[in-house]
Amino acid sequence: MALIVQKYGGTSVGSLERIQAVADRVIRTRRTGHDVVVVVSAMSGETDRLLDLARGLSGRPIERELDVLLSTGEQVTIALLSIALQEKGQDAVSFTGAQVRILTDSAFNKARILDIDGAQVRKALTEGKVVVVAGFQGIDGEGNITTLGRGGSDTTAVAMAAALKADECSIYTDVDGVYTADPRIVPEASRLDRISYEEMLEMASLGSKVLQIRSVEFAGKYHVPLRVLSSFKDGPGTLITDEDEAMEQALIAGIAHNRDEAKLTIVGVPDRPGIAHSILGPIADANIEVDMIVQNVGADKTTDLTFTVHRNDYDKAHDILQRTAKEMGAKGVNGDKRIVKLSIIGVGMRSHAGIASRMFKALANEGINIQMISTSEIKISVVVDEKYLELGVRALHSAFGLDKGTGKNG
Amino acid sequence: MALIVQKYGGTSVGSLERIQAVADRVIRTRRTGHDVVVVVSAMSGETDRLLDLARGLSGRPIERELDVLLSTGEQVTIALLSIALQEKGQDAVSFTGAQVRILTDSAFNKARILDIDGAQVRKALTEGKVVVVAGFQGIDGEGNITTLGRGGSDTTAVAMAAALKADECSIYTDVDGVYTADPRIVPEASRLDRISYEEMLEMASLGSKVLQIRSVEFAGKYHVPLRVLSSFKDGPGTLITDEDEAMEQALIAGIAHNRDEAKLTIVGVPDRPGIAHSILGPIADANIEVDMIVQNVGADKTTDLTFTVHRNDYDKAHDILQRTAKEMGAKGVNGDKRIVKLSIIGVGMRSHAGIASRMFKALANEGINIQMISTSEIKISVVVDEKYLELGVRALHSAFGLDKGTGKNG
Repeated sequence: MALIVQKYGGTSVGSLERIQAVADRVIRTRRTGHDVVVVVSAMSGETDRLLDLARGLSGRPIERELDVLLSTGEQVTIALLSIALQEKGQDAVSFTGAQVRILTDSAFNKARILDIDGAQVRKALTEGKVVVVAGFQGIDGEGNITTLGRGGSDTTAVAMAAALKADECSIYTDVDGVYTADPRIVPEASRLDRISYEEMLEMASLGSKVLQIRSVEFAGKYHVPLRVLSSFKDGPGTLITDEDEAMEQALIAGIAHNRDEAKLTIVGVPDRPGIAHSILGPIADANIEVDMIVQNVGADKTTDLTFTVHRNDYDKAHDILQRTAKEMGAKGVNGDKRIVKLSIIGVGMRSHAGIASRMFKALANEGINIQMISTSEIKISVVVDEKYLELGVRALHSAFGLDKGTGKNG
Repeated sequence: MALIVQKYGGTSVGSLERIQAVADRVIRTRRTGHDVVVVVSAMSGETDRLLDLARGLSGRPIERELDVLLSTGEQVTIALLSIALQEKGQDAVSFTGAQVRILTDSAFNKARILDIDGAQVRKALTEGKVVVVAGFQGIDGEGNITTLGRGGSDTTAVAMAAALKADECSIYTDVDGVYTADPRIVPEASRLDRISYEEMLEMASLGSKVLQIRSVEFAGKYHVPLRVLSSFKDGPGTLITDEDEAMEQALIAGIAHNRDEAKLTIVGVPDRPGIAHSILGPIADANIEVDMIVQNVGADKTTDLTFTVHRNDYDKAHDILQRTAKEMGAKGVNGDKRIVKLSIIGVGMRSHAGIASRMFKALANEGINIQMISTSEIKISVVVDEKYLELGVRALHSAFGLDKGTGKNG
């Protein structure tokens, strides 16, 4: 008998009918002999409804009270799902974040989980009950209600699985797994049976929105096997787990893309130690996150520094950079909002040479010019003109043998 | 500087505009130098919306989970009111029943308050904050969320006032006080400045729906001065307090009526000890509450027993009574749903003779036949045909000098 944590998002519990379907699915799992803990989000639309109420009173509602407000969304769902389970003959009990004692720090609206006291949950499981836990919420050391920020229910599920030493944490979503590329762009993309935490982390941070990054980090840290499945159709989904040496390892797990970035360049900066800090310090101070950074030193003792930021931050970053350029006596500032980032991801590339050149060749064959390059141990990202997004993703998907029916890549 | 507990019901917080109006009122009280604790209900309609969700899943939703569900209604209001207060510049903090630690028994949906740990609330008041507390809810000894049943927010307010030794508990409603009779029936009815707990208790239990009975009992037990006021217009309202010997005491505080009763008679029961129990036992076993009971022994060694029940329970009670009649060899069962109860209430009648006869005379003058009579120390109730409701109330209101402009009665 295993212990399974299942997590259902807002769309999966978006109506009474869907809540009943979730209850049926939970009961099916229970009847195969497993203990089940279910983590749920607020019904879809509910969080926005509550936010609208708060915003009707204040342009910037106090964060503590916003958490008191928003946490009711999941509390409604746990009660309804428990009622549905019991109506179908399955004994069940609901717990809020406070009742489980999901202890967080006091960063309202974006709290981090510090500890989980699973005693109440374990006791209920021993009594044969399905335990339904409110995602997204906890309490701080002083008993204040906190929330983990949007998507925090994934993190709750993984943290519960870690605390209870669950055998698997199943995340039910509206997609049936993790794909080698976005199927809307690459019709030949296929579902991965298995992917490592590291690869998933790169996929997630590079724009694949299947899972919240924090939940994948958490799962990797505590070695919680994580499975992404569809709430609406049956299937094995994708298992996210520790890298398995024994397995035949695909060279590249998938192709990710991100169209949310914009590029900024400060040109002709007098080259001396500390200039990167002088340029990026004011950007960081303005709470703008910088992704890729590239610096080239020219022959004339000046340097160009290029970096990417979220498109929403582009205008703000551009203003700051122009002020910095003036102060430093730089030649000027360029920028481009019409870029995208394409990435190939795979733990297999650690042990193989020539992956980067294969990538660059595939793009060159299509006449795609590369503007920036950034690499890590298990991924290579390039920035290209946004008009090449679909063409580039398809070229890479094909070049690394990921197209359905073309067999194993490598 | 006094400590005031204010309670606002669902209508008073039924929209964002009304929540802002409540915030303004709270701030006005605060600015006169008082500490303020505010107890709020769910926004009007919200509790029914949540109940409908639960009933969409189960004809009889599990009570524990229903409380988890319903308690979110007040939690939404405390967050919104705190946001509104802070937006208007008044520091405020919200607490759920669990956060205050309003300890109740485990009777879900109708829990009773056992204890309140006001430490958190007191601390927040010391910090200059307005404290906003969720009405209607608490937790039991095991940390389960409980609710006090409909109208329970009044009880929360009084219990908070008792625990904090507040100087006054103000209940804001949609009426501006307690009246000598229902103004819709008696246009000459006037607002009472003051009424004793005992009188209010009789008024409430006899059909005046201004306050929940339990909250008045609670206030009387802990000597919490209770004031009923309007949320929508200014005014002194009615103060409910200990009986004040020094005050000139009105003979009769008011005239109450109750149209929710029905009358049942079992006729010709062989008279022997224990028959009242044999007749009323099965009624009580069916969870039917009996109000008035009258028994007459006839000359033929048989007796008639008449009692009243809530109209909703009439059919059920009638069935039970017919079975009992058969078993006991009684002559038969009569019933009447078309009755009302009229009552005069006043602590002043303790020290005055002749009140009853004055009441009966007033009714007789109007040709109203009395079907049953029941008395307590501070009230006299009669059952009459429902067609006499308005006529009877007006006759009594006038007979005891309560009509506006006719001066003090007695």
